[in-house]
Amino acid sequence: MENYYKERASVRNFSDKEVDDSMLNEILTLAAKAPTTGNMQLYTVIKSRKSPARKALEELHFNQPAATGAPVLLTFCADFERFNRWCKLRNADAGFDNLLSFTSAMTDALLMAQQTVTIAEQRGLGTCYLGTVTYNADKIAKLLKLPKLTFPVACVAIGWPAVKGGATERLPLEAIVADEQYPDWSDDDILALFKDKEEYPANAGFPAENGKENLAQVFAEVRYPRGLNEEVSKMLEKHLKDSGWIK
Amino acid sequence: MENYYKERASVRNFSDKEVDDSMLNEILTLAAKAPTTGNMQLYTVIKSRKSPARKALEELHFNQPAATGAPVLLTFCADFERFNRWCKLRNADAGFDNLLSFTSAMTDALLMAQQTVTIAEQRGLGTCYLGTVTYNADKIAKLLKLPKLTFPVACVAIGWPAVKGGATERLPLEAIVADEQYPDWSDDDILALFKDKEEYPANAGFPAENGKENLAQVFAEVRYPRGLNEEVSKMLEKHLKDSGWIK
Repeated sequence: MENYYKERASVRNFSDKEVDDSMLNEILTLAAKAPTTGNMQLYTVIKSRKSPARKALEELHFNQPAATGAPVLLTFCADFERFNRWCKLRNADAGFDNLLSFTSAMTDALLMAQQTVTIAEQRGLGTCYLGTVTYNADKIAKLLKLPKLTFPVACVAIGWPAVKGGATERLPLEAIVADEQYPDWSDDDILALFKDKEEYPANAGFPAENGKENLAQVFAEVRYPRGLNEEVSKMLEKHLKDSGWIK
Repeated sequence: MENYYKERASVRNFSDKEVDDSMLNEILTLAAKAPTTGNMQLYTVIKSRKSPARKALEELHFNQPAATGAPVLLTFCADFERFNRWCKLRNADAGFDNLLSFTSAMTDALLMAQQTVTIAEQRGLGTCYLGTVTYNADKIAKLLKLPKLTFPVACVAIGWPAVKGGATERLPLEAIVADEQYPDWSDDDILALFKDKEEYPANAGFPAENGKENLAQVFAEVRYPRGLNEEVSKMLEKHLKDSGWIK
């Protein structure tokens, strides 16, 4: 089992084989035992199966192969609305339209998502988080008919692997774990922490392919450029307001 | 292994036995293979071992027994600062001071936290998320010397279980999983979804103990009251600004 954790990798190419609904429900039932804020389960998972109707969702994920090819897309939504409605029906003064409640629901949804991914992968399924969910959060919310006090925080493509990728490189442990307080890194320390990443064979060709001088520029100027980050952030802030989470 | 997922429960009472640093580092190394946004690993984990110096952190977790008793507290921080510094040192135009970047880093930190919890529990350790981390996020950030573009999003108490609790109840699957779109629940549907929770033996005594009419009022008016939610939310917004994530 520990080998699973060491060797796991996301899967972006799926076979045509279906994922049985009974299997998927078993996985989600087990995953729902993941920790949750005050046992409130502040999330809802929307299953989207491959169909002509799913094309709209796939487009909002920019038609990436993992989105178009997966038999199932699971959208994990932060959700205080179900709980909120229950409270109101029970004449309780529910005050969950705020940033703290959003972070609690986002946390619950993400722990549920990761538990689902782990259990699915341990059953031989392949999974891939679609980071694109945040880039079109408002449109995805509309398409999936998400009410107020919800927010799509993660989308996971699930299916049987056609091509299994190898585990990708990670930073050394001293880059991500510290004793007692945040490390007081010098500039040289920072460069040392990223040295292996820069020299990793699979990363070595990226700068030239993208017309950049180095890997950091590929990340900051090509993959996650400031202009796009700021544009999406404006939409996220508006959608947080429209969804009733913040004023 | 599947039984583990079904029966897992958080542990709040720990024995005095230490958690070896080598074991902890093995767990964190494996956990770091969890999915991460663009393989940027936008998190830092701060280990706090039991010591007189840790009292300040325990106080910020309101001295709850899981915080004071655990040999190790792991604070999982959203962290774009390490990556940001690398980009700047490589003359890359890094634009990560925005809400999108915050949600990416928060996501990475939470997937890493949940993977750590799962692997630790599968090795026999007990864990408990301390939801209090958000209630004092600003003070915890100061204590752990967190720089800008970081945020403490989860704290996990880890140790060997002294008393192992049973798995707590969960909502039925139809409450948390839906096909194709968000369910169009009637009020009666909502009440039906929460019926088992309201009648669950361990929950049955809470209303009377708290001088409330029902369980929903205990959640909304005693455990997570509006006034406190709004006060903490104001602090979170200020701390997001002070940390450079939002304007």
